[in-house]
Amino acid sequence: MSGKETWEKVIEGDIIAAARLMRDLDDEFPEAQETLKKLYRHTGKSYILGITGAPGAGKSTLVDVITEKLRGREKTVGIVAIDPTSPFSGGAILGDRIRMQKHALDDGVFIKSLATRGHLGGLSRSTIDIVNVMDAMGKDVVIIETVGVGQDETEIVKVAHTNLVVVVPGLGDDIQAIKAGILEIADIFVINKSDREGADKTRRELEHMLEMKKYGEGEWKPRIVNTVALTGEGIDELLDAIEEHRKHIEEKGLLKFHDLRKARVELYEILKNRLFEKALSDLSKNGLLEKLVEEISEREIDPYSVVEKVINHRFDYYLSREGDESDESAQEGGKGI
Amino acid sequence: MSGKETWEKVIEGDIIAAARLMRDLDDEFPEAQETLKKLYRHTGKSYILGITGAPGAGKSTLVDVITEKLRGREKTVGIVAIDPTSPFSGGAILGDRIRMQKHALDDGVFIKSLATRGHLGGLSRSTIDIVNVMDAMGKDVVIIETVGVGQDETEIVKVAHTNLVVVVPGLGDDIQAIKAGILEIADIFVINKSDREGADKTRRELEHMLEMKKYGEGEWKPRIVNTVALTGEGIDELLDAIEEHRKHIEEKGLLKFHDLRKARVELYEILKNRLFEKALSDLSKNGLLEKLVEEISEREIDPYSVVEKVINHRFDYYLSREGDESDESAQEGGKGI
Repeated sequence: MSGKETWEKVIEGDIIAAARLMRDLDDEFPEAQETLKKLYRHTGKSYILGITGAPGAGKSTLVDVITEKLRGREKTVGIVAIDPTSPFSGGAILGDRIRMQKHALDDGVFIKSLATRGHLGGLSRSTIDIVNVMDAMGKDVVIIETVGVGQDETEIVKVAHTNLVVVVPGLGDDIQAIKAGILEIADIFVINKSDREGADKTRRELEHMLEMKKYGEGEWKPRIVNTVALTGEGIDELLDAIEEHRKHIEEKGLLKFHDLRKARVELYEILKNRLFEKALSDLSKNGLLEKLVEEISEREIDPYSVVEKVINHRFDYYLSREGDESDESAQEGGKGI
Repeated sequence: MSGKETWEKVIEGDIIAAARLMRDLDDEFPEAQETLKKLYRHTGKSYILGITGAPGAGKSTLVDVITEKLRGREKTVGIVAIDPTSPFSGGAILGDRIRMQKHALDDGVFIKSLATRGHLGGLSRSTIDIVNVMDAMGKDVVIIETVGVGQDETEIVKVAHTNLVVVVPGLGDDIQAIKAGILEIADIFVINKSDREGADKTRRELEHMLEMKKYGEGEWKPRIVNTVALTGEGIDELLDAIEEHRKHIEEKGLLKFHDLRKARVELYEILKNRLFEKALSDLSKNGLLEKLVEEISEREIDPYSVVEKVINHRFDYYLSREGDESDESAQEGGKGI
């Protein structure tokens, strides 16, 4: 509308500005990075909800009905769906289209699907960026939906305040193979498709698993909620459980713990991906990268020595916040590749 | 036995030396890294087989029967299983124990399970290290077994010469949600548990999917093989298909392409993980890391600026193979955090 900067528009909830920013982030425009920096201090207000479960567990439907309930309570919602882009089901594209139809006329819902393709190690960072944009936009709740099997996906849900782990009855132990790391952060187990045979057995198994763990006084013991997302059954109970967990976090003074955990994941993931991108981009100059790959493939050099060389050249200089760069000559090893 | 170095023992196929090296790599002993460097030029002889599929697809059983067949043909086998460590099924530990029993007395089989827990972004690098150790040991075939949903897992199978993607009939489209990235590298589709209802439908779906793609003259068109791993049905046909693909690679002169692809993945994954580890270790000095996390959580700073600062301090120095470090002062921005 005016001479306002993008970050100003975003914090006012401007959907077009936010969508454009996300696209610019995808395209790695430097200005988009600058906008993110300005937005960051406006984050920290959203309640972040992680929803993890194997493909077929009904996560998308669950996210949709939770969103509807939240909208009924006048809450605005942002959704980041990390999609394994199945060529069978149509993946992210089809998924987005179906979702868009449902919430197309609702300004209170903002949806972004992230395909796991084509991001050279940048998926976790993209998720963080988008959660932060939605947070800065003023969304009351931001939902992160993920299959949670990969390493990045396991890390990323640590930015959430409350984590749901969705299981389905009757799929057998193997199918439910959820990473132990995910279980450890599960605040609520959702047995979705609970009208199916085996729901009781799944519940007993989960209860048994929780009994094995010792929970201290005042410690949160994960809740188990049965739902049928398609009919909306159990969703009120699920929202109650989420609310209960939210209160637990507040009353026990755990918000600080969550803030620190989120900050750490953000720093780590951004650091990991940016360092790698920068190193690749530097190595690509003068065709050095292709030459190195060629020489490794011929076993003239080994990749371990190459990486050591890269690191030695970059990390001789002790990093301090004051920009202290003494001792750089002392560590010059001069190992030729 | 003697004053031999570890790398010498490993290339002679010494199982105890190899197992100890893998443990030392887990513990990140610097000597283990040095051994890897020495081993690398002895790699490149193994045929690497990637086996990817959702939990419950029967990958482990398939790997076991393939291994048995290969042993029957006097081939030695190394197996790297990337395990999602399900707390339901017992995960890596139980899995390893069952496998160990079966092949415990067979020196020709070396098995290593990698849990996806506890590796701070180092899973892909660990896999590469272990494949290289097994290759240097002289294993004829090295099998990488993975669920292939995460980003790291998708990258890692690119080191394989032949990639199998395992699907199961009757699990529905959602369950089969295999990443498009994985499909693109699938050389052979295995419809396991083919005695189940829906095997024909799954085959038709796969055939249909392959028909949609245009394959050029002389290009490899993925095979589809039906198996029942538990009874061994279809395993001979599967091995024939693998052999057919191996011949295709050789005859079309594609070995170089595979060598380059493997070298690139190795370099990228080692680079990404080592850079991150080194940065974290540097930042941890003087409690700086904790201070940064604290300040990010308070939104006094933003993680994007912190990472930019880290990168600027490290990447001012143009990397060249000659150790050229001119221009380092020219780019000193001096942006305080």
